[in-house]
Amino acid sequence: MGLFKDKGRVYKPVDKVNLGPDSDEYYLRANVTAPRTAGFLIKIFVWVLESRIFGTLVVYLLKKSNLLHKHVSYAEIEEPPIFVPAHQPEDLKEQEVTFIKPNLSPLEQVGEVLDCLPPVPEFTVGKQAFGFRHWTIRDYSRAYSSGETTPLKVAEKFVYAVRESCSPHLQMAFFIDYNVEDILRQATVSTLRYKEGKPISVLDGVLIAVKDEIDCMPYPTTGGTKWLHKCRPCPGDACCIKHLRSCGAILVGKTNMHELGVGTTGINPNYGAARNPYDRNRVCGGSSSGSAAVVGAGLCPVTLGVDGGGSVRMPAALCGVVGFKPTFGRLSHSGVLPLNWTVGMLGVLSGTVEDALIIYAAISGHMSPNQTTNLLPSICFPVLKSTKSLSNIKMAKYNKWFNDCNDDIRISCNQALDQLNKHYGWKTVEVTIPEIEEMRLAHYSTIASECSDSLSSLLEKTNPSEQGWEARLALRVYSSFTSREYLNAQRLRSRQMYFHKEIFKRADVIVTPTTGVTAYPIRNDAVKYGELDYINGAAMVRFQIAGNFLGLPAITVKVGYDKHGMPIGLQFIGRPWSEATLLHLAYALEGLCSKNYKKPQIYFDLLRKA
Amino acid sequence: MGLFKDKGRVYKPVDKVNLGPDSDEYYLRANVTAPRTAGFLIKIFVWVLESRIFGTLVVYLLKKSNLLHKHVSYAEIEEPPIFVPAHQPEDLKEQEVTFIKPNLSPLEQVGEVLDCLPPVPEFTVGKQAFGFRHWTIRDYSRAYSSGETTPLKVAEKFVYAVRESCSPHLQMAFFIDYNVEDILRQATVSTLRYKEGKPISVLDGVLIAVKDEIDCMPYPTTGGTKWLHKCRPCPGDACCIKHLRSCGAILVGKTNMHELGVGTTGINPNYGAARNPYDRNRVCGGSSSGSAAVVGAGLCPVTLGVDGGGSVRMPAALCGVVGFKPTFGRLSHSGVLPLNWTVGMLGVLSGTVEDALIIYAAISGHMSPNQTTNLLPSICFPVLKSTKSLSNIKMAKYNKWFNDCNDDIRISCNQALDQLNKHYGWKTVEVTIPEIEEMRLAHYSTIASECSDSLSSLLEKTNPSEQGWEARLALRVYSSFTSREYLNAQRLRSRQMYFHKEIFKRADVIVTPTTGVTAYPIRNDAVKYGELDYINGAAMVRFQIAGNFLGLPAITVKVGYDKHGMPIGLQFIGRPWSEATLLHLAYALEGLCSKNYKKPQIYFDLLRKA
Repeated sequence: MGLFKDKGRVYKPVDKVNLGPDSDEYYLRANVTAPRTAGFLIKIFVWVLESRIFGTLVVYLLKKSNLLHKHVSYAEIEEPPIFVPAHQPEDLKEQEVTFIKPNLSPLEQVGEVLDCLPPVPEFTVGKQAFGFRHWTIRDYSRAYSSGETTPLKVAEKFVYAVRESCSPHLQMAFFIDYNVEDILRQATVSTLRYKEGKPISVLDGVLIAVKDEIDCMPYPTTGGTKWLHKCRPCPGDACCIKHLRSCGAILVGKTNMHELGVGTTGINPNYGAARNPYDRNRVCGGSSSGSAAVVGAGLCPVTLGVDGGGSVRMPAALCGVVGFKPTFGRLSHSGVLPLNWTVGMLGVLSGTVEDALIIYAAISGHMSPNQTTNLLPSICFPVLKSTKSLSNIKMAKYNKWFNDCNDDIRISCNQALDQLNKHYGWKTVEVTIPEIEEMRLAHYSTIASECSDSLSSLLEKTNPSEQGWEARLALRVYSSFTSREYLNAQRLRSRQMYFHKEIFKRADVIVTPTTGVTAYPIRNDAVKYGELDYINGAAMVRFQIAGNFLGLPAITVKVGYDKHGMPIGLQFIGRPWSEATLLHLAYALEGLCSKNYKKPQIYFDLLRKA
Repeated sequence: MGLFKDKGRVYKPVDKVNLGPDSDEYYLRANVTAPRTAGFLIKIFVWVLESRIFGTLVVYLLKKSNLLHKHVSYAEIEEPPIFVPAHQPEDLKEQEVTFIKPNLSPLEQVGEVLDCLPPVPEFTVGKQAFGFRHWTIRDYSRAYSSGETTPLKVAEKFVYAVRESCSPHLQMAFFIDYNVEDILRQATVSTLRYKEGKPISVLDGVLIAVKDEIDCMPYPTTGGTKWLHKCRPCPGDACCIKHLRSCGAILVGKTNMHELGVGTTGINPNYGAARNPYDRNRVCGGSSSGSAAVVGAGLCPVTLGVDGGGSVRMPAALCGVVGFKPTFGRLSHSGVLPLNWTVGMLGVLSGTVEDALIIYAAISGHMSPNQTTNLLPSICFPVLKSTKSLSNIKMAKYNKWFNDCNDDIRISCNQALDQLNKHYGWKTVEVTIPEIEEMRLAHYSTIASECSDSLSSLLEKTNPSEQGWEARLALRVYSSFTSREYLNAQRLRSRQMYFHKEIFKRADVIVTPTTGVTAYPIRNDAVKYGELDYINGAAMVRFQIAGNFLGLPAITVKVGYDKHGMPIGLQFIGRPWSEATLLHLAYALEGLCSKNYKKPQIYFDLLRKA
């Protein structure tokens, strides 16, 4: 249908439209140019339409002359399509979970979460009894409060470390943009608050970086491209960023990502290939590549990512950190690039489960009564009563699927399940989850269609030469989907919703490896033009899709390393709205595995005493 | 993309799939045939893909070889896509409306409704003080109870009348199928119940016909085609039919409709052009053409139709009867052809508002706790406390739109508003509803995409020569939509949802003419091959779309006649879930207009004393 380029109309935002009798809105009379046709003429018309070449042309002209192209097909409309895989909040009757008051602020929610955590363990890098551990939010907070260090000192170390990570011998390509002046300004104010003994919260002075798909001042939002921010200037902080700022966090910049999130390697032709802290010659996974690597390398205890097809959980697993994606609709998406609105969701990457929990509490809070969108149900936020381990947990496991990964992953993940059984008595329940690969295909049709719809009107304003080759290729395929393909994919979605509902009657969570492969080498020929490697790509996303296509919450925790020392993640996929339980399970799993955790090859210790 | 015909997979129904470890479900390993491509090869690949001809071919082959065609694009999947324009039931605080207990049966709901109606007026055709009136359900019930006549006698008269309507000088083409034996059998049983003094309800022995898009035994469901029932045998009564039978109604057959509902005239090449009872040389409107004509001609007091783009309200207006379409999701659609699942809704056609209310009560009841689908919220059914007129009603009117109709319609409809103001003090509020025509285009893209998706896998099994020319033409255009067109249409839907929500803050209902034209002549050349008349077509649907695209409830009531004696309808569009108020307003309007009602040219009086 794109034989010619038709101009689409640009619609003004709905709330700017006057609905009164004095409105200047134009009443468009039906512009019907087709003549009445009946009798034998209809027969001829059908013959023409059913011929491949002429038919396509005539249908095109019919749509064009009847204004369909201008007002629908090629129009630019900022409102999202209304249909989303929203789950009604349910009363789940979870163990050891309590509900706090609704509509609490980020600050209040963070406070509630802290109350349920055990005291901070005394802990020094190098001396730990239980393997390597990333510094946590509470470690930073304690170091600031005790005067051991200050946010400003940490920020200075951070800037120095980022510069080092960019040096020719490292070229980690963690960040797309970071503004030293802006970072030090925030750190100075935070330091002052600690000096006055008035830190805002445990997050005061904590460094947080965000994927370059999330609006965060003073940076443009590039989506990993060289052009998107020129068409779409960043309008201000995203909702989640406002939440973090309200708790005193320091926003330190925009992390590298796979261009437009179209791939899973993190090899970005515009900003460099993000490199894995466990081996700089290997991929980070993607698309929230930099967000995972930055946490892995110790530059920030937490970062934010966006997960449309495993984009938070995959790089988290490959970089050996925690990756957490809540239920669809649980967090406001205001200020996140709307690349794929029925599958994408904000997610948290962090060194520990505890930190994922704290950040989740902050960004799921309510800023003001007006800030809540209709996607954000005003439910009570569930917090753990304690970190006491849960009993009687049943984990659904589909063996054929679970074992469809490389040997090291299979062994590590099965060992983790054995440990969970041995220490807590949790049981695996064997199930069959039908149509897993079919779901991946349906998800691909969906994310491709949505991404194409979101970007088409912007892409038409840009020069193809500004796009990376891999993104250009993906966008060409994305634009090829018919409405039938999209709708059939949604039918498969209905089926999977049903299947998963049934599975959750038999078990509390579904358990899988997070990825089918570990971090693999970055090849030289991939760096400039990108890489199409569908085999590794399919192995990467194999266990991700239910989290996105069905909007289910999911979390990945590191359970071991492969023979090259690359991290391996285990994933829990939960019922809708079961974030509290999911974090609880992940906490317990982390407790068992962390004694074997190893320090990444590339690691910057921002709390080390000078 | 349809250059070659790929076989799609047929999925088995979800509830037949075994989810246990012993399942025979096949675990499909990712079948990735594409080689790894990187470096300069990617550049060449992009060039190929971006070329029109080769690119299309290569994308096709990529999708095919990666099994997307088999498992998604051309698959046959009976589960509907999950996304529907569902409105959350709201507590509307309506005047003179009371809620009855939830989960009442059809029978109980009908009883509750009867309690709020005034006594049946003494009324004889020919002698009425207030113009012509169709016999109502209560007229039939009284005549049966008093022994004046019996269901069997009425059924016999009905059969005789239908035969007469098919005679060469009439050729009304009201029905696609009716089974004399089945009708008389039901009538005999009903007659017996009356003889024993034990009629089931006021509906016992009342004749009801249904559009041939609704499953009703013993008939096949043709959808107005010559082929659909061969691919899809009728599996049993639709949910609404079960409801009606449980109240004792006699189901008398399947009414004619526009082939697959693709047009609005009711000219069906397979079963004849349904003709208007007010002038047999004019159209009925469509697509529930026969359902409207059968009520108009006095053969049934009520019929059922399905309204996907005004298909109940348009023929109702053209045939001078009441047409009522409830809120999307208000009634179970189980057993209704799923041609377009986000815009279509069962509707009632009846001679009077009172009868629409009774039937609505019956079909919105609950058969059993298990019968409720997740679309049917278990809310209390609102019934009128009385038929006392409401006060302080505000009717939103968009003048440019309202007046975009022929002169007779404009005059009649404005007069009706004046009368409502004069008698009840209801006020019109001038508003602007933006993007009306744009909404029609977006609705077209939607209904076309959905219809194409629903029918494609069936169509592939059938011979094109079995399809009527008009349907074939429409289906060719329907199949041309891209996922971007569908999704952009859903963006426009979001906008309209917002606009209408705002309008309903200013007024209780939106008021429009029902159609922009009245019944127009059937031309000879249209009867065999059908007719494409987009100008009349656009005028027909002009006021319909919000009811379907936004799922709003709407009702049409006859307010006058044009210079040819053709009926004119006025439409109220209500807030989601405001059916009770809408019926209340329609009742009041009917009370004002009915004194001028005229008897149709073709009319069969089944209660006339022999």
